[in-house]
Formats: sequence, C-alpha cells, structure tokens
Amino acid sequence: MLNQDMLRLGAHQSAIRKISEIGKRRAATYGKDSVFDFSIGDPQAPVPADVKAALAAAISSPDKEGVHGYTSEPGVESVRRAIAQDVNRIYGTAAQAKHIYMTCGAAAGLAISLKAVCNAGDEVILIAPYFPEYAIYTIAADATPKPVRCAQDFTLDIAAIGAAITQNTKAIVLNSPNNPSGAVYPAQQISALAALLSDASRKLGHHIYVITDEPYRELTYDGKMPPSPFGVYDDTILCYSFSKSLSLPGERIGYIAISPTISDGDDAYAAIDGAARALGYICAPSLFQRALESCLPVKTDLDFYAENRKLIYGALTALGFECAPPNGAFYLFIKSPEQNAEAFCTRAAEKGILLVPGDEFDCPGYARLAYCVDREILAKSIPVFEKLRDLYFN
Amino acid sequence: MLNQDMLRLGAHQSAIRKISEIGKRRAATYGKDSVFDFSIGDPQAPVPADVKAALAAAISSPDKEGVHGYTSEPGVESVRRAIAQDVNRIYGTAAQAKHIYMTCGAAAGLAISLKAVCNAGDEVILIAPYFPEYAIYTIAADATPKPVRCAQDFTLDIAAIGAAITQNTKAIVLNSPNNPSGAVYPAQQISALAALLSDASRKLGHHIYVITDEPYRELTYDGKMPPSPFGVYDDTILCYSFSKSLSLPGERIGYIAISPTISDGDDAYAAIDGAARALGYICAPSLFQRALESCLPVKTDLDFYAENRKLIYGALTALGFECAPPNGAFYLFIKSPEQNAEAFCTRAAEKGILLVPGDEFDCPGYARLAYCVDREILAKSIPVFEKLRDLYFN
Repeated sequence: MLNQDMLRLGAHQSAIRKISEIGKRRAATYGKDSVFDFSIGDPQAPVPADVKAALAAAISSPDKEGVHGYTSEPGVESVRRAIAQDVNRIYGTAAQAKHIYMTCGAAAGLAISLKAVCNAGDEVILIAPYFPEYAIYTIAADATPKPVRCAQDFTLDIAAIGAAITQNTKAIVLNSPNNPSGAVYPAQQISALAALLSDASRKLGHHIYVITDEPYRELTYDGKMPPSPFGVYDDTILCYSFSKSLSLPGERIGYIAISPTISDGDDAYAAIDGAARALGYICAPSLFQRALESCLPVKTDLDFYAENRKLIYGALTALGFECAPPNGAFYLFIKSPEQNAEAFCTRAAEKGILLVPGDEFDCPGYARLAYCVDREILAKSIPVFEKLRDLYFN
Repeated sequence: MLNQDMLRLGAHQSAIRKISEIGKRRAATYGKDSVFDFSIGDPQAPVPADVKAALAAAISSPDKEGVHGYTSEPGVESVRRAIAQDVNRIYGTAAQAKHIYMTCGAAAGLAISLKAVCNAGDEVILIAPYFPEYAIYTIAADATPKPVRCAQDFTLDIAAIGAAITQNTKAIVLNSPNNPSGAVYPAQQISALAALLSDASRKLGHHIYVITDEPYRELTYDGKMPPSPFGVYDDTILCYSFSKSLSLPGERIGYIAISPTISDGDDAYAAIDGAARALGYICAPSLFQRALESCLPVKTDLDFYAENRKLIYGALTALGFECAPPNGAFYLFIKSPEQNAEAFCTRAAEKGILLVPGDEFDCPGYARLAYCVDREILAKSIPVFEKLRDLYFN
C-alpha cells in the first residue's frame, strides 16, 4: 500500500551497493588499506581557501543580515546577477538574473527541469551511457526515457538521435564531459544536434528542449571549456553544480540557467519555479548562495584530477586494459575483459578494487572507475590491478 | 507544451505576492519605515552562538574529514543516531538511526513522505486552515487533498475527520502548533484521532498514515511540548525542521522520523528513500548535518516569540480585533472585520500592514499575522492598527 515504485527505488540493491558490501567485508577482514574505493564520484580535491574564508565571513556577519534566512524561491537576486554574468562570460550569452534559478545541486536542477517541461506521455532521449537518475527523474515527471546509444568513441551518434525522435519527443538530456565515460562532445556535433532539433521542432510543431547537465564543465584536459548547446540552441536549459568545481558535493548548491533565447521564456522560468515548489524545494541553501557571490572565479585544484587521470590511464593501458578516451570529468570507463562487467567488478572487488559495472549506466560491458581520490590510493592500487589483469590476460 | 500544472503553480499571483507588491510601492513612496511586513514566517530570533561556533569549527576542520562531502542519502549515521535519541527523549519512543532520514527542511520531508505513501487515486485529509504546500505535495504525489474544517477553536473536529474517511483515505496531515492559526491540539484529541484511525484502518483493510508537520514543536506558550501523534499512533511519520528552533530557515535542514512501530517499517523507510531519490534529493546539506550533531539541545531565544505574542495579542484584542487563541507557533490569526479577508488585507496593506488572507490557507474570513519580527516593528505597528480599526469599528 506504500507507493510500490518508490519502494522498489529505495529497496533496489544496486550493483554499487553489492560491490560496496564486498569492499566492507574485505576491509573488516584485511583492514581499510586493502580496499581501493573507486566506486563513488566524491571529489577529494580541497575546498578552496577563498570559499572557506567566504563561509567564515558569512557566518560571523551580523544577525540582521539574515545570512541563514529564507531567500526568495529563485535565490538571492545579487547572486543570480553575478551568476548570469559568469554564464555570459563562459557561453557568450546575454543572460540576466531572471534566467538563473538557484537549486540544491544539479540533481535537483534536472528533476525540476524535467518536471517543468514534460507532460504525461512525453518521451525524453537519454544518451547511453547515462547517470541512472536521468531515467528516474524522467519517470517521476510522467515521461518515458528513450535511451539512444552513443557513438563508438562515446560521443554523440547524431543519426541515431534523429532516428529516435517521435511526435512525443519533448527533451534530450546531454552530459558533457560525461559521467561515466569521460567523453567530451565536439563542437561540430553540438551544432549538428542543434540543427537536427531545430528542424524536428519545426516539423513536429512543438519545441524539443535540450537539458544539459554540466557539473564537470571545468574538468577537461585540453584546457578548453567543453562545447555546450547553451548559447547555440535556443531551447536549452543548463543545470550546473558547484559540487566538483568547488568540492562541495554534500552542500547541494547549483543553478538552472535557461537560455535567454528560449521559447516562451517567462513561462519556462515560471514552470521551473512551479516544479521546484511541487517537489518540495523552498530555496537553495542560503549560506552557500551568499558565499558563492564572491567565489565565482574560484576553482579547486583542477590539476589534481588531471594528474590522477594521467597516472591511472597510463598505468591501466600499459597493463593492457582498454579504456574510453578520458577527455573530461574524473571517470575512467574501462572495457570489461570478460563479457559480463558485473562479474568483472565482483572479481575486482574481491581483490579490493571497487568499480561500478556499466550496466548501472545502461552500458553493459564496461566498468567505471572514479579517480577523484587521494593520489596515494590510486598509486597503491596499481599492483592490485596487475594481479587483476593476470586473471584475464596471462 | 510546458507542463501546464507547473506553469500555473509558478505563475500564480498569490494573494501574498499582491499584498507584498502594495507594500513595495508604499515603501518606495513613503520609505521602508512605513511598511510593517507581517506576511512571511521568517524567524528573526538570533541564531544561537553554539550553532555559529559549531559551523565555524566544522568549516575549519581538516579537508580529510570531508565536512562538505556527500553524505549517505539518509544522512550522517552519527547525526541520525543523536537525533533518534533526541526524538526518544521528546516523544518517549524507541527510535534508532534507521528511523531517521535527514531532509532539506520539513517541506522536503512532507513532499517525500506523501510521495512515499500515496498511490494514484488516494485521498489525503488536510485540516483547514492548512499551509498551502500540503495540497501541492498531495497533488504532486498523484493523490487528492480532502480538506476537513477544524473545530470552532481551531483544534481538531474528530467527528468531521471520521466523516471524511473513505475507502481511498491514505493519510492525514497534522500541524500542531498550527500555521496559520496558532492552535495546539490537546492530548485527548490526539488519542481520539489515533483510536478513530486504528479502527478505520482495520475496517478498510489498509493503513492510514498520520504525517505530522512539527517545525513549531518548541514554540508553545505553556512551557509544555505539544501533544503529538508520534509515539501514540503507530503509523506516524514525523517531519521536523530546525528552521524555527535554530533560526536557520534558509539552510533547509530537518528530518523525517518514522515511528519505530510503523507497519512494514523497513519498507516504509525504503519508500521514503526512493521518494527522496525520485524528487532529486541527494542528501541534506552536509555542513549543517554535522553542525547539528553537537547542537540538538540548543534552542534560539524562544522568549523572543513569547514576548512578541503577548505584545501583539494584547494590543489587537484591546483594539477590538478578534483572534484565534494563539497557543503556539508565531502566528496570530485575526478574524477579518469585513467578510472578505482579501479586501481587509488590501486595506491593511494600503496603511502599510502586510497580512496574508486566510483564503491562502483554505480558511476565508481570517488574516494571518506573522509576529516573528523585530519587536520594534511590532510595537510601531500598533498605532497603525488603531487607524485600521477605526475604518471598521468607529
């Protein structure tokens, strides 16, 4: 009599949890140092000193300033103005405060955006592999996920996306740099997608929205901002989080930016406000909104991830593991040396290496390694990977 | 093509906003001091020094402790253990960490709880007057709100609740101390309700859940904890927020406690976890979870509200206004001296006093005054109330 969908969702023993249990048992028997946990994308780069200073200053500000008080639902006006400027600098747009809606992280932004644009019976295209919550938020918005496989090199397969569009297509979720593959979509694919969707929207007589999830925006390894549909395709809703760039994942602070050229702009913003209200969000955490205002140019030590990536990608390919080209984010997507990636991840876990099977991301045959960990752990895991390799290649 | 329900919800020009606009125009013309804003329940009692110290200590803790990192979805285990003990002290229960789920405030707790227990077609009883989000969360959970009018003195009308129960009744939302009426439900009514619901559940062959919203738990004026169904009725889900007791409303920190004797306890907790996931919640803000652990016995200056209440209730009744007995929370529910409370609130706003018409709470004929404001503002408003009174009674 409880809601059975919610019960299934909460009770589901995900492969991640099963792997984590093996790790816990191993740690209990052989000690913590015998477990290398690469299963969770919990960033270990330090919180920047400027952020800590801004938080400390906000906390010691006079009570009258109400730093812990309610903000308006969309967020503090001056913070949204500052973010709009930052967005314009990055994407070459002309966004204003009225296009920015502060959220409890990008996850909330995605859940809210999908709820705002979808009606019952709509379809949402997801590019596999994808973060599993995309499908959950789509279903929670009464719509149907339509997975489309990525290209061989984990970028977009524009033809496949075109073939998946139907009368019911309402949105497509993009995520570049990608979790779990590390792919960064090239600019020409973004342009081709924009052309495809503009054409399809015209033919269908309704807008197809691009919802772009960009928490890894700062994490590319060619020093360039990743190409984005924001500023390229009018009907784009951008979801961002400071979880990675400022190492604040537990604080749930991010924003939605709607394209200033989106169709029915005021209505789109109002629908986002309505969806946030319906999902129980009152405002994004007040202290962190205020601390951000002075910290938008600040980033954590991004080299931390670049060096980790070099270390683990170099070591694993040298050992003979095949990996998707890791151009961004902090994940390495390893081709499973046996067909069943869950079996591979179980063997790895029994040796102390915790990975997540690609099945969790609708992409069997691969395993995700999150290298956002202490470098020492990464380095110490390599001899263990060697032993794991020997199970397959020797 | 946007979701029209979300659009309506976001675009809705609520009476609160209209009143607020009149206030803004008045402030622009006559200055800020000419406006007495009693329209929002934004607590102005100070954030306790212990809370500020705990926040400062957490921020300056070593990076390795991951104070800003992800917590598990239900929240930090040690924090949940401490809260379970606090809950047991207050309610005489035997809750453990596994009964506590940290949330982004009580609003998120309510949205999650309703989503967890409701299926399409279910009915949820709301006691009018009620906080309007209860109906929004009920509808978002595919269920139908069934308002039941409170008793003459704003406590429960048990017979009316009994008459409203149907085969489809899944839950009832309680809120005592009440927003907007200030009513506190007496213990004998809680017992009578528990007996009624136990009996009805047995006859119907399914559980009826009580979802109790208790952010004003510490705000009673007889020095006693308000009677609660938690610990009295097995199938109770408690939603709490530290917004009022610690003056942290913008930080969105609270919890759900499920009764340790709830039916299908593990499943109920799992459904709550699933619902939190579906609504886009990853975890409650990490810093505030950790700061709470040492601050559970801490409260803001509750006398601040008691004195405000004495001042404004005394003054308004002396002027001839009729008010609901204000036994808790920080609201005074004033009987409108003309039939149309919106018209009364418009007249009040034109004089600079911002109130919210009871219509917003499904209770026409009344107006809500939030007295959680600086005492000086409260005191200065009284001569203005006198002028307002003169429009009606002289």
